[in-house]
Amino acid sequence: MDTLCTRNLYSATAAAVLLSLGAARLLAQTSDESSPAPSNVPGAMSPSIHSDGRVTFTLRAPEAHSIQVAGGDGLGKGPFPMTKGADGTWSVTISHPVPGFHYYWFILDGVSVNDPGSETYNGYSKEISGIEIPEPGVDFYAVKSVPHGEVRERWYLSRITGQWRHVLVYTPPGYERSLSRRYPVLILLHGMGEDETGWTRQGKAQFILDNLIAAGKAQPMIVVMDRGYAVKSAAPQFAINGDTRLGDLQLYFGTFADIVIHELIPTIDASYRTISDRRHRAIAGLSMGGMQTLFIASRHLDEFAYIASLSAVVLGGSDPDETLGEDFQREFDPKTAYDGLFSDAVKFNKRVKLLWLGAGTEEEMVHAKVGEVADALRRNGVQPVFFESHGTAHEWQTWRRDLYDLAPRLFR
Amino acid sequence: MDTLCTRNLYSATAAAVLLSLGAARLLAQTSDESSPAPSNVPGAMSPSIHSDGRVTFTLRAPEAHSIQVAGGDGLGKGPFPMTKGADGTWSVTISHPVPGFHYYWFILDGVSVNDPGSETYNGYSKEISGIEIPEPGVDFYAVKSVPHGEVRERWYLSRITGQWRHVLVYTPPGYERSLSRRYPVLILLHGMGEDETGWTRQGKAQFILDNLIAAGKAQPMIVVMDRGYAVKSAAPQFAINGDTRLGDLQLYFGTFADIVIHELIPTIDASYRTISDRRHRAIAGLSMGGMQTLFIASRHLDEFAYIASLSAVVLGGSDPDETLGEDFQREFDPKTAYDGLFSDAVKFNKRVKLLWLGAGTEEEMVHAKVGEVADALRRNGVQPVFFESHGTAHEWQTWRRDLYDLAPRLFR
Repeated sequence: MDTLCTRNLYSATAAAVLLSLGAARLLAQTSDESSPAPSNVPGAMSPSIHSDGRVTFTLRAPEAHSIQVAGGDGLGKGPFPMTKGADGTWSVTISHPVPGFHYYWFILDGVSVNDPGSETYNGYSKEISGIEIPEPGVDFYAVKSVPHGEVRERWYLSRITGQWRHVLVYTPPGYERSLSRRYPVLILLHGMGEDETGWTRQGKAQFILDNLIAAGKAQPMIVVMDRGYAVKSAAPQFAINGDTRLGDLQLYFGTFADIVIHELIPTIDASYRTISDRRHRAIAGLSMGGMQTLFIASRHLDEFAYIASLSAVVLGGSDPDETLGEDFQREFDPKTAYDGLFSDAVKFNKRVKLLWLGAGTEEEMVHAKVGEVADALRRNGVQPVFFESHGTAHEWQTWRRDLYDLAPRLFR
Repeated sequence: MDTLCTRNLYSATAAAVLLSLGAARLLAQTSDESSPAPSNVPGAMSPSIHSDGRVTFTLRAPEAHSIQVAGGDGLGKGPFPMTKGADGTWSVTISHPVPGFHYYWFILDGVSVNDPGSETYNGYSKEISGIEIPEPGVDFYAVKSVPHGEVRERWYLSRITGQWRHVLVYTPPGYERSLSRRYPVLILLHGMGEDETGWTRQGKAQFILDNLIAAGKAQPMIVVMDRGYAVKSAAPQFAINGDTRLGDLQLYFGTFADIVIHELIPTIDASYRTISDRRHRAIAGLSMGGMQTLFIASRHLDEFAYIASLSAVVLGGSDPDETLGEDFQREFDPKTAYDGLFSDAVKFNKRVKLLWLGAGTEEEMVHAKVGEVADALRRNGVQPVFFESHGTAHEWQTWRRDLYDLAPRLFR
């Protein structure tokens, strides 16, 4: 009967699946005061989070020769070597991880592999394990008993690239009921190596907005999360690093900018009850998405009145032969940056309702650089918000806090 | 500058990401007549599909001692040992995989791990690699230039379990425009070890429906894909296998049935423009979901006029002390099964507009059993559709074909 059942009756898909995990979690919590991370797949006991905040990772691998855990900055200075127990299960406990969301992976005999116990997320240009470490007392991104919006998957065909594009659209609570109401739009961009799913799966943007809207702190808005990559057919391969020429970056971002302006915005305006003018349209993005935001907004200021750059380098120059690394190292000049976007502060302040810059204090050079840019802008009469996320690095806890600060400032 | 860029400027998240993959794919195709599988993450060259249908898997692992590929039935009789090349990259080419979607994994020094080159999917109760092998000449589940519906994420709080539930809802093309139109509803259930994302991510149900609706072959309908697991708080752990007592199965499915009838359907009716009567409501499911379908429909025939069980065992008895394995082995009696649901054929045929049963010919015992059940029902005067998917096993190509046959028969 075992053979019949595991192979034939339900096929291998179903073998030995434990269905009731609430009970298993409860058990874990009482027995050793640790509980499975909220990012575990249902039923997985590891990774587990101890009541004092330590995190234990385990992997059963009797035949392996070495295993380490490595991951995002907030996990600590890894890789962390795991030790093998008598039963062939390797484990390591990490002492002071920063709360929030971290990508991580096992290095199993030299190969980076996922943890079968965790959900996977699009990051590092692949599907990768992530762990959610609750921040004590913090619930602004939790699913709560408030009215919830919807996150909708939509496909549209780009004439510019000739490819179908997948976009996620958050519609706020009440959108389906208030059929005569129209809504402002936030275009929200992800970072490099991630995709259009990042802001909802890792960022929990939909719950942040649900909670802010329920508390009357943010205007109900439509949030558009597109895929930030776009290459015209037969375009060369492209990578962003310190050696990237600004001219190449402009070319690459230019294709995406064309899609946003000429395809995405018209698609959204045709599909949803938007208020289709610049005073009711914001653009924001993190890391690469922040660079794209300033690139797009500076060239299309007639489309956006709210601009936010999260954990991103603010370019100083526009010489196509300069590299990103060179640009980063010289001083930001508000008179010349972005082809003079900020040079006339009076004009800029009249036209742009909000310029919002953010960085985590643990982002080191990005944090310092963005702070310098904010100071330089202020000296020139432009008044950006500079939001600092304390104790967090180039990771999602920074960007969740960013959105929580940013969204209430939009469309006022 | 390299250090600055990979660590600080964009953080490790962004290291060495190649952004332009259309070009890379093109290159691969011309150089060795193979191309990356459509299920690869953008930029990954492996797994690759050769023009003659063979599939090559590779993994770079210079320090590993042994690697195999294993996966769903349609890949062939694995595991397939990989061989190590001089550069530390292991590879294997598989000759006759069945077209369609297969879960698979590497066994790396004894540990089952994902392929970093592929997307992951919820299956086997975790996130697992999958490969899409195109079926020549078949495009009924492709994204085409037809009007597209939306897939919407919705959350609702279950009073029965005390937990938030995540449901995906397909709304057909035109739903946003035809504001006075109301639509029939198909409740579509997944199998064991999978979740509410299976029908869209693996099954491509949204594209199957878009294409059928565009061709005028299926009625525009709302499709509701809920999570098929539900346990009341403090309920014991539960697994389904041949030793499972029918009484335990009834208890377990009973909780989910209560949620479907008393929480899911009212939530959907309150949130979407449904036609809220049994003649405009169908229920269908695959494998475990097919068992749930018959369990729920047989007890709530006042709610559903269309019933479809895909690749699922049709129970014969209801003795709570009998095991699933025992039930499977005895002959199906239409007079007594499901507490006499089929016993009065005239009454059943009047009340149920469609009873649809399906199985893949490579599902062995399930295919044979479902065929026997269909025959027995016919001898008793009930006229089920029995759809056979030729050459496919307990995998998604079977269920895609099922939906393509089933959807046009609904709400006629």
